[in-house]
Amino acid sequence: MPCAVFGASGYSGVELVWLLHNHPQFSLEYAFSSSAREDAEPIASLYPQLAGQLDVILQPWHSDLLSQLSQQVRVVFLALPHEASAELAPVLVNAGLVVFDLSGAFRLRDPSIHQQAYGFERAANIPETIAYGLAEWTTLAGTEQLIAVPGCYPTVTSLALKPVMSFIDGVPLVNAVSGVSGAGRKAASHTSFCEVSLSAYGVATHRHQPEIAQAIGHDVIFVPHLGNFKRGILATIYVPLQQGVSQASVDTAYEQAYSATPLIRLRQQPPAIRDVVGTAFCDIHAVVHQNHLIICAAIDNLLKGAAAQAVQLANQYFGCDSALGLQQRGGVV
Amino acid sequence: MPCAVFGASGYSGVELVWLLHNHPQFSLEYAFSSSAREDAEPIASLYPQLAGQLDVILQPWHSDLLSQLSQQVRVVFLALPHEASAELAPVLVNAGLVVFDLSGAFRLRDPSIHQQAYGFERAANIPETIAYGLAEWTTLAGTEQLIAVPGCYPTVTSLALKPVMSFIDGVPLVNAVSGVSGAGRKAASHTSFCEVSLSAYGVATHRHQPEIAQAIGHDVIFVPHLGNFKRGILATIYVPLQQGVSQASVDTAYEQAYSATPLIRLRQQPPAIRDVVGTAFCDIHAVVHQNHLIICAAIDNLLKGAAAQAVQLANQYFGCDSALGLQQRGGVV
Amino acid sequence: MPCAVFGASGYSGVELVWLLHNHPQFSLEYAFSSSAREDAEPIASLYPQLAGQLDVILQPWHSDLLSQLSQQVRVVFLALPHEASAELAPVLVNAGLVVFDLSGAFRLRDPSIHQQAYGFERAANIPETIAYGLAEWTTLAGTEQLIAVPGCYPTVTSLALKPVMSFIDGVPLVNAVSGVSGAGRKAASHTSFCEVSLSAYGVATHRHQPEIAQAIGHDVIFVPHLGNFKRGILATIYVPLQQGVSQASVDTAYEQAYSATPLIRLRQQPPAIRDVVGTAFCDIHAVVHQNHLIICAAIDNLLKGAAAQAVQLANQYFGCDSALGLQQRGGVV
Amino acid sequence: MPCAVFGASGYSGVELVWLLHNHPQFSLEYAFSSSAREDAEPIASLYPQLAGQLDVILQPWHSDLLSQLSQQVRVVFLALPHEASAELAPVLVNAGLVVFDLSGAFRLRDPSIHQQAYGFERAANIPETIAYGLAEWTTLAGTEQLIAVPGCYPTVTSLALKPVMSFIDGVPLVNAVSGVSGAGRKAASHTSFCEVSLSAYGVATHRHQPEIAQAIGHDVIFVPHLGNFKRGILATIYVPLQQGVSQASVDTAYEQAYSATPLIRLRQQPPAIRDVVGTAFCDIHAVVHQNHLIICAAIDNLLKGAAAQAVQLANQYFGCDSALGLQQRGGVV
Repeated sequence: MPCAVFGASGYSGVELVWLLHNHPQFSLEYAFSSSAREDAEPIASLYPQLAGQLDVILQPWHSDLLSQLSQQVRVVFLALPHEASAELAPVLVNAGLVVFDLSGAFRLRDPSIHQQAYGFERAANIPETIAYGLAEWTTLAGTEQLIAVPGCYPTVTSLALKPVMSFIDGVPLVNAVSGVSGAGRKAASHTSFCEVSLSAYGVATHRHQPEIAQAIGHDVIFVPHLGNFKRGILATIYVPLQQGVSQASVDTAYEQAYSATPLIRLRQQPPAIRDVVGTAFCDIHAVVHQNHLIICAAIDNLLKGAAAQAVQLANQYFGCDSALGLQQRGGVV
Repeated sequence: MPCAVFGASGYSGVELVWLLHNHPQFSLEYAFSSSAREDAEPIASLYPQLAGQLDVILQPWHSDLLSQLSQQVRVVFLALPHEASAELAPVLVNAGLVVFDLSGAFRLRDPSIHQQAYGFERAANIPETIAYGLAEWTTLAGTEQLIAVPGCYPTVTSLALKPVMSFIDGVPLVNAVSGVSGAGRKAASHTSFCEVSLSAYGVATHRHQPEIAQAIGHDVIFVPHLGNFKRGILATIYVPLQQGVSQASVDTAYEQAYSATPLIRLRQQPPAIRDVVGTAFCDIHAVVHQNHLIICAAIDNLLKGAAAQAVQLANQYFGCDSALGLQQRGGVV
Repeated sequence: MPCAVFGASGYSGVELVWLLHNHPQFSLEYAFSSSAREDAEPIASLYPQLAGQLDVILQPWHSDLLSQLSQQVRVVFLALPHEASAELAPVLVNAGLVVFDLSGAFRLRDPSIHQQAYGFERAANIPETIAYGLAEWTTLAGTEQLIAVPGCYPTVTSLALKPVMSFIDGVPLVNAVSGVSGAGRKAASHTSFCEVSLSAYGVATHRHQPEIAQAIGHDVIFVPHLGNFKRGILATIYVPLQQGVSQASVDTAYEQAYSATPLIRLRQQPPAIRDVVGTAFCDIHAVVHQNHLIICAAIDNLLKGAAAQAVQLANQYFGCDSALGLQQRGGVV
Repeated sequence: MPCAVFGASGYSGVELVWLLHNHPQFSLEYAFSSSAREDAEPIASLYPQLAGQLDVILQPWHSDLLSQLSQQVRVVFLALPHEASAELAPVLVNAGLVVFDLSGAFRLRDPSIHQQAYGFERAANIPETIAYGLAEWTTLAGTEQLIAVPGCYPTVTSLALKPVMSFIDGVPLVNAVSGVSGAGRKAASHTSFCEVSLSAYGVATHRHQPEIAQAIGHDVIFVPHLGNFKRGILATIYVPLQQGVSQASVDTAYEQAYSATPLIRLRQQPPAIRDVVGTAFCDIHAVVHQNHLIICAAIDNLLKGAAAQAVQLANQYFGCDSALGLQQRGGVV
């Protein structure tokens, strides 16, 4: 299955390139860099760790490549800034390509919530068939034109909450800590080495809050934090329970939801970030305590929270095994 | 004011030694090591960073030093294991010394809760006048014989919650992340360099939970985490509010509580761990959101959460300015 | 090719298990834990990051398993303490097994140098055919009974120096910094999270010094350092050159040595630790400056410096492609 | 002694501000920010960790403040970019101020070497009396107009080498690892959190090489490295010795040089970075091995390598005790 990656020079993009390069069913034909750089260059000049392993050429995208692209590939993965995705995705869909979009451009169904969260208005000509692709909870028909890959925080949070939504009695509180790679590859003061230190940010105002609420169908309070590590998200979630919900019923709910999903691991102990870094797993641990459910869930933000989930969705789209090509340990960044 | 430190070889103990060594009113006469070591040794052989700065000799404690000690010093600080403190503190009190105890031996008033939390029974002959010394909320008469210095998590949590307890309508949820030094100096697998990775532990079963509940006078759900940094605690606290509590009333409550306390900083932004590391400050930021109050509070676990709070209490006990000798930046560990 | 790992619970051992589990030609039949533990247990109870990925059972080794082992497997990998290896390897060889030993027990040819470096005398009944397996510089006949896999520091240093030994005029100086995993999995004060901080250790007295000297056939000054990172070694090597050695001749020497070796990368820029972490690569950069050659070389200490080099040697021993099964990114620890 | 800091918003500048604020003899009158910002702002809005501790206002510098400045202060500290210092320092000197310049603008005596190293030509009207202020090796007359404070690498290297220069027989090799704060506060790709990883840079081409050579009066090979920590430099130095130089003679040389200098610590073990972080100390350990001297030396790059050395020089200039106000532990960044 020939495919292309846009935004291949960014952190999520390069992980996509690595996954697709090693995938038994996909064949990476093009890797377009995030910006319209002057010249093509080997990916190893940006990521020297890939020297001798990955000979992909990053090339700038020009719109006059569209017809060539649409003839040679069937699937594209977009790891672009939100507005760039919003603009490009419809063009690619119109050219007959299946688009897996890792940006936030098409995640929020309600246009006004979208505009408030992302600060720009989505065009009217958006693809008609858009799926929100929380992989374990989405059945793809193989006819969708555009699949919006969930954000990193919404992925781990929704996977943790969806099996137990019928038990809740109040607003879930999501306390999440993300590694610095979640902020992307661009240099910035708050992500410079000497400045990073565990703290909350965007308290109850983060744009992933409405996405989580949409995914779980319930209001949520969400407080993200920046942690002093490169990769991974740990979400600790506090859920008020209805009277009488037992640990056994919670365990059963998780087992029913995830006994057949190869990339969810139900854990007997709270997961640590390192348990999932470099993997496509989501680890979940849940304990009933005093009419609350306390859930600890962890993913690698760049993999299960971005690139690996996109590949997992593409696997499902094309009828492959969900975890095909995703049993790795390790990544690029 | 001549004083002594027990447990001076541990992390909290060495911070105490450094603070007292530099304090304008206290004079450190003895520094006893945590265990009965064979020989006395300079503190710099354990902590080479103190070479040329601190010429204190760590010496083993023997009970036959008691009469000498009680003649030469007035105050002792105990940074010992819980059971060692439980045994030694009454002896020192009986010898006429004022004891500031940094262990958990005397924090919990209810003996059965104490036994459940710490796994040993407290002796019957405990000092009659014990104060629980949450510094900003305790008025010391100067007649107490033993002051139990609060635990690190209870300190930051109680300081954050006490001003707003009259507004709450439900159980506060405390999500806290501590640096590794909180586990002490002894080598252990879970605190070895290659194993530390952000994760929850002791979910809803930590022994600081009953201490927090006692300090705020209300039940609480408490989930501690181990973070991949040396010092500091960040607590993110979610408090269900009564209908109609405004941001303004919350702000007013904090200002009334802390406008005159030099070591509490009310912050306009969520504090980062590094803002407080090496200081005796507790930073607090609180936002009303959807009938919840979201509080971010941070301290240095070894200072405001241990050694600096003990010194602050001693300042208060002897009528000094509360923050005397505590305007430093930096520590030993 | 059925094989077994001894010492599978340690850091190098678990990397071996992971590599062999994923290897197209080897089949891992047994994973023995480092110590004689009471009960067998899944590897994921020690390394939860492997849950759902690796179903290997760690079992204790008893000598009465020997005949069964020798019938079922052909190759064993020993990731044991030096003395344990020294004792066990001859037994396994006598049972007809091919042994790849990752310890230092058989690396040093001279028994007196060995005894001085390791503090114990090697038994007289050591296997007759022992190869020192610096992979890129060893041709295995496939008849060796025991292959001593080089130490981590000697691997990176020897790979960096051997191509240019004919140019040198004086003693090479090796300044190397290793990640903490090099000290193994056992908890110890100097590798606890709060104590690790970049510093030299074993200045000119480290046991890898005689091994490097043996491998390059020349005296060497070697100063190892402990760095505050988990994995990887960076060696910066200063080599006095004979008069008139040019950059071009150095470049040619490296190209001749390594143009056909898939796991050596000759780099145009000094490598960073992260370029090699999780990989089996050795990256080398060399610059002629003022009659000195300054070489920067990097490996992952647990992979190219231990487990991956062992697998590479086994590949070569059995006629497989040298890098078979070693094109991964990432590891377990 | 009233003084001012230029470049107070940068990492070295803010450390200067903190030191001078707490200094018993200096009185900080002005703190000018590094750039001509629009408005004055409290230093705590850039460095929230200083809230409640330091009420200094950062203000933009305009040349029409010169006469006011020269009337109110006697000393200025410049923590500015090299070219900005080159331009401003003569102006301040002409206004009668004593200038301690932390930049590289006036360190190199030879104008052509300066131009090659820094890429700009120094003005002809430079102050006539410039001292290069390696504090332990400089005697200030109190009449100098401008004191060039040495660079961080040259400080630690020169302090380590100067006592033993009479013993050497060949070119010293300096392998140094610096924390990321050495690159300053400005966000940049190579110092962003996800990119920092131990590696050499500027191999034998760094601009501190000629400064070290000038300071020790001998050629030197210098290879700096970036390490994954915030503060501190560890230099491991390899010195070819003349025949017969003993450990005892080396020890004597260091003792003679430094027995009376309060900020040099001669250590029996190799220092770790953390031993000096937050202090004004330089720690030195030296071992004779095989006709080489192997020296490990460590400083805090922002303190002994910048701000604290500047204050130490000012202490000496005005006849104070060299270490006055420098017995702290900890810093701001």
